[in-house]
Amino acid sequence: MTYDEFSLIRRWTSRSAGQTGDGLSVGIGDDAAVFSLPADREVVACCDAMVETVHFLKETMNPSDIGYKAVISNISDVAAMGGIPKYALISIAVSPNWTAEECQQIYDGIYAACEAYGVRVIGGDTVSSPAALSLSVTVMGEVEKGRALLRSAAKPGQLVFVTGHVGGSAAGLDLLLQTAKTGEAVEEMWQPLVAFHQRPVAQVAAGRILAASANPGALNDVSDGLASELWEISEASGVCLRIEAELIPVAETTRMYASHKGKDPLHWALYGGEDYQLAGTIEAVEEERIGALFAQQGIPFTVIGRVEAGGPSVVMNRNSRWEPVAKAGFNHFGKADARKG
Amino acid sequence: MTYDEFSLIRRWTSRSAGQTGDGLSVGIGDDAAVFSLPADREVVACCDAMVETVHFLKETMNPSDIGYKAVISNISDVAAMGGIPKYALISIAVSPNWTAEECQQIYDGIYAACEAYGVRVIGGDTVSSPAALSLSVTVMGEVEKGRALLRSAAKPGQLVFVTGHVGGSAAGLDLLLQTAKTGEAVEEMWQPLVAFHQRPVAQVAAGRILAASANPGALNDVSDGLASELWEISEASGVCLRIEAELIPVAETTRMYASHKGKDPLHWALYGGEDYQLAGTIEAVEEERIGALFAQQGIPFTVIGRVEAGGPSVVMNRNSRWEPVAKAGFNHFGKADARKG
Repeated sequence: MTYDEFSLIRRWTSRSAGQTGDGLSVGIGDDAAVFSLPADREVVACCDAMVETVHFLKETMNPSDIGYKAVISNISDVAAMGGIPKYALISIAVSPNWTAEECQQIYDGIYAACEAYGVRVIGGDTVSSPAALSLSVTVMGEVEKGRALLRSAAKPGQLVFVTGHVGGSAAGLDLLLQTAKTGEAVEEMWQPLVAFHQRPVAQVAAGRILAASANPGALNDVSDGLASELWEISEASGVCLRIEAELIPVAETTRMYASHKGKDPLHWALYGGEDYQLAGTIEAVEEERIGALFAQQGIPFTVIGRVEAGGPSVVMNRNSRWEPVAKAGFNHFGKADARKG
Repeated sequence: MTYDEFSLIRRWTSRSAGQTGDGLSVGIGDDAAVFSLPADREVVACCDAMVETVHFLKETMNPSDIGYKAVISNISDVAAMGGIPKYALISIAVSPNWTAEECQQIYDGIYAACEAYGVRVIGGDTVSSPAALSLSVTVMGEVEKGRALLRSAAKPGQLVFVTGHVGGSAAGLDLLLQTAKTGEAVEEMWQPLVAFHQRPVAQVAAGRILAASANPGALNDVSDGLASELWEISEASGVCLRIEAELIPVAETTRMYASHKGKDPLHWALYGGEDYQLAGTIEAVEEERIGALFAQQGIPFTVIGRVEAGGPSVVMNRNSRWEPVAKAGFNHFGKADARKG
């Protein structure tokens, strides 16, 4: 991009300029944004970065998908605290291999994700980068004071659950990397996998149901794979999580594609990541009530195991044999990458 | 860096882990941080990115300076709203030309800046980058409800002021680029210029004095050069700013170095940037009172002109001739770069 094209983008992102009201006192266009929350709420804040060649390739993600997913990964973190996402700051570093039009499409994706979840873009920074495009998104939201859902709240006797289905994003990546290599179009039957990878859903409503529980358990979002997320809960809570392989929810298309490719769908579920489902624990007596609330919202909800004293450890029963679950996470393209601090 | 080194950094950044209290409910170590502010406060939030080769070179900035300055540029934005900085999220993308030790030094600088201004690191993301290190920092702070200082509050009859001195960071960059080229050590007499460039000061106390005014004017921080900042105030407020060249505060060392190099110190002051001083407007009747408060805090405060109806425009009286001030900003190394949205 040239300097003039940068000005275009700057103007384009200013479509949020001057928007205030509903708690927002100052939006885009000053040194910083200013907002307030109701007196009974706390601020929930998180930040996730996505870098070209490390987290995505031009071959596997449309520009608008890149923007969309960068926002979703942060909204998902707010959901995993039981919060409501409200505001976003967008920091983008653009390298010369991206056109102004592609950047506008990235912002289209950013705004599409924000609008879908009631989030307002209130600031950010647009700079150039010598070699790879990177996108760092901060999302701020709110949660009732003292009600944020923590990884450390798992207790022996509770049940382990996961929302939706997992492994689909990794299956989609496998498919997209292959079609990028061969130049073939994606077959109709595998289209759902593309959506799992490019347009994930953040489970905000699920987080809100769990945050309303009088006796909540632990919660995490599946950004790095179910194994990694369960390990984080196990370590933060000092408990052992015992899960059943056959209960882990994997979409039918994911299973079919794995079978077609001779791969193990459970591996994608455990170590794939970017599914942005919620995984956590609930009191056993809450199973029926919470299951009914999830059903009302149309969100699949699956109990996959239970919490026991001991650990930290995560073990899985597969074909009647208990095996340890490796503490491994997502590694997109075989390159070094560290997970969230 | 290798994957193992990334783990080191991850562990190292977790030195804030588990820190809570004084409004912070959840710090580093969960999906998101959670904090609350007093009921009479709003949240001030901003985000600034710095990219290797675009905003800094290894030759001109020590790793710890890079971390320090990335935090200061955000604290300065909070100061320019009249706010108190409180919390930071750190997003870093590390390229292979950086060692784990250098990354630790970057974090040393980040923590040093945060500690100097009472800011707590509450989260972030550490990822890899194929080619250039980039650092995106989000700082969140607080300001009394309805009291944030805006660029749009300049009114005819007010005075234009700037804190501290300007142009020193650009002089320091000129010096550091030269010594990087020649390999010479920096002469003792020019050392202050190095500090102006590498270790800028954010004017939080100055912003607080201005925010306490019953009838506040406009405020901006000098990140892109005085010309750019005054133009932003002029455009946001719809006024003409008339400034006097000879009143613009330039440090004696900056003047001497400019003279030594045959350069115009005023050019650095207007178009250099990264001085992180505050520039703004105040009511004329407030000049004495506010000047005394700044003097008490030891912060230089200089009236450099006045606000008139008309515009938007910025004009400067130099040697008894009025000339337009160009709407140009900072451009570190001659590469395209866009300013904050």
